[in-house]
Amino acid sequence: MSKIMAINAGSSSLKFQLLEMPEETVVTKGIVERIGLNDSIFSIEVNGEKKEETLDIEHHAQAVKILLDKLTSFGIIQSLDEIQGIGHRVVHGGEKFNDSILINDEVLEGIEEVSELAPLHNPANITGIRAFQEVLPNVPAVAVFDTAFHQTMPEQSYLYSIPYEYYEDYGIRKYGFHGTSHKYVSERAAEMLDQPKEDLRIISCHLGNGASIAAIEGGESIETSMGFTPLAGVTMGTRSGNIDPALIPYVMEKTGKTADEVIQILNKKSGLLALSGFSSDLRDIEQEAEAGNERAQLALDVFTSRIHKYIGSYAARMHGIDAVVFTAGIGENSITIREKVLKGLEFMGIYWDPSLNETRGKETFINYSHSPVKVMVVPTNEEVMIARDTVRLGDIQ
Amino acid sequence: MSKIMAINAGSSSLKFQLLEMPEETVVTKGIVERIGLNDSIFSIEVNGEKKEETLDIEHHAQAVKILLDKLTSFGIIQSLDEIQGIGHRVVHGGEKFNDSILINDEVLEGIEEVSELAPLHNPANITGIRAFQEVLPNVPAVAVFDTAFHQTMPEQSYLYSIPYEYYEDYGIRKYGFHGTSHKYVSERAAEMLDQPKEDLRIISCHLGNGASIAAIEGGESIETSMGFTPLAGVTMGTRSGNIDPALIPYVMEKTGKTADEVIQILNKKSGLLALSGFSSDLRDIEQEAEAGNERAQLALDVFTSRIHKYIGSYAARMHGIDAVVFTAGIGENSITIREKVLKGLEFMGIYWDPSLNETRGKETFINYSHSPVKVMVVPTNEEVMIARDTVRLGDIQ
Repeated sequence: MSKIMAINAGSSSLKFQLLEMPEETVVTKGIVERIGLNDSIFSIEVNGEKKEETLDIEHHAQAVKILLDKLTSFGIIQSLDEIQGIGHRVVHGGEKFNDSILINDEVLEGIEEVSELAPLHNPANITGIRAFQEVLPNVPAVAVFDTAFHQTMPEQSYLYSIPYEYYEDYGIRKYGFHGTSHKYVSERAAEMLDQPKEDLRIISCHLGNGASIAAIEGGESIETSMGFTPLAGVTMGTRSGNIDPALIPYVMEKTGKTADEVIQILNKKSGLLALSGFSSDLRDIEQEAEAGNERAQLALDVFTSRIHKYIGSYAARMHGIDAVVFTAGIGENSITIREKVLKGLEFMGIYWDPSLNETRGKETFINYSHSPVKVMVVPTNEEVMIARDTVRLGDIQ
Repeated sequence: MSKIMAINAGSSSLKFQLLEMPEETVVTKGIVERIGLNDSIFSIEVNGEKKEETLDIEHHAQAVKILLDKLTSFGIIQSLDEIQGIGHRVVHGGEKFNDSILINDEVLEGIEEVSELAPLHNPANITGIRAFQEVLPNVPAVAVFDTAFHQTMPEQSYLYSIPYEYYEDYGIRKYGFHGTSHKYVSERAAEMLDQPKEDLRIISCHLGNGASIAAIEGGESIETSMGFTPLAGVTMGTRSGNIDPALIPYVMEKTGKTADEVIQILNKKSGLLALSGFSSDLRDIEQEAEAGNERAQLALDVFTSRIHKYIGSYAARMHGIDAVVFTAGIGENSITIREKVLKGLEFMGIYWDPSLNETRGKETFINYSHSPVKVMVVPTNEEVMIARDTVRLGDIQ
């Protein structure tokens, strides 16, 4: 029995979850926020109860020290020796990392090298890794990449139809994200279907504030909707998804904004927020649509139509499918969204049961038993994937 | 019986076709090139034979005069009175024009107003209209828009997930193009199927140097792959189709180019040309792929995969389909492309016959007779559509 810490470090935050392995049970979880700012907030779950404290935390290494102190002082662990591995979520692994990897100096350099592709995320992830190295230098640490699962995509899926040297010289290609989640739910789906993943063609719909769809054939991602960055693909909370690229200079000319500013708008002020005109939160939008707000209804229609079309698209890509899986905040919890996304797909073998669809946050099938294509809700669990990979690559018993 | 002139004017060219209506037979056709430059070229078909002449033609009105002179001097018509209508192809009709329209001063102003949306095309189209007004002021002229057929798209199809005021203030939305072609081939398909178009769900694949796919339900376009401009959608001869918009500032930073220059590259130096590395012409690429060139094979794979996925996507959009139609240079003539696009779509009812697919440039079915979804090749004919609309709106007997 061993405890594994799964870490997701942001530029001023540190999310943690401590798991007991191989049971995969959560011992505790929490978050340190506003690191390096005034009034940092430390929160942690103790016996199912959330404890919160305001402190001054100057940097990530200090946050890690405080976290470890609290774990012992709250009696969650008796000794730091119980933590046998640390798994770090890293957003971008570029083409360098097609699997999780045990971190050493060379690996850390590699993660730094691909930072240019994720300038907002990788440096923060590295800060988290270094903080733990400082405090727990002898505990094996593993990097788990959001992009790694999609590295199995063939050239025809990951190459854009743009000058080839942009790929060779600058690494511009489709990478895809949410890989840890797509991998988790597709493997879980194979278990639920009691079939080897090698025999299955699965469409995985990770629908949260960020959203992406993946085509998973024989256990490997062969196509996904996000691209060079997480901006591409379907409509999201505040992201536009795919647009005609030629509208960028048009918007620049009309508004006097720079290209970077326009992309910023496409990332932060678009998507459901722009369509609804009032919120990026799907729950608010569903409520307003219910009350007759037309722009809210429009936002729902656009959001679900894009996902619906990706399902058709990826079914064609795999020459038919065996299962569709919904996960993440919206995918797990929104009955309406699943209903609108699935509507009218009987022609491709999807027969879903409206009464089974009345479910939230639980692992379950929502198809009629006679449906050739199975449809399921699978709550995602990236932390478990991180812990599993940490055990596997850290050689932890 | 009446003769109608179908005109497609470019900035320095004038394509013409004279049709006998209602028989829809071609009396003659040709092109005037290099108008306003040195050594303009006038070519025309006389009794099936091409006659070419080098002349100095200063402007479009002069080109029209010469054209009309030639028509009588070659004995193609006896008198100019035989020309009872002129139909002009106009690229962009914006939201103002959802059908072809008889041209008057107000209409011409309207076409000018939407020119901002197609600055390379509409002004040239207007020049062509004015040239005929000057030379044949009393002959009714009709404008036929590339965008009009797609004006039936619902909001959820044409709105981007970007700030709503970009639509309201600047008209940024999906317009779609090739409308005259999509309309022609889908109507022709309904005739071939001997079913009212109102009952049919058709995917029309216009695959030429420019390429677009349309979902046509009940005779109306409800979705199409091109967008605000003809850059969006599938990979084309030199156009990228959809990309992650966030790569634009990245390319700008890496290469020192402006946003306009990057879009220019995405329009002129991308697509099949970029993927293959040697040609935008699909025939060259097919030949090289056959000879073992891997980049040529890659170009074919990417091109066909994108179209293949659109078929799945639009089938989902319409909750299943009745027919897929191939048209334009590649769609009508490339056996390989149709094969790769159609492969593996049996799950959605498409059973195509490889031996029937061995066809080029002819109107024909290529599905097995038991196939629930019919697949056909329909050579497009935009000139006939222009002539039909000219007869209809010009009130010509």
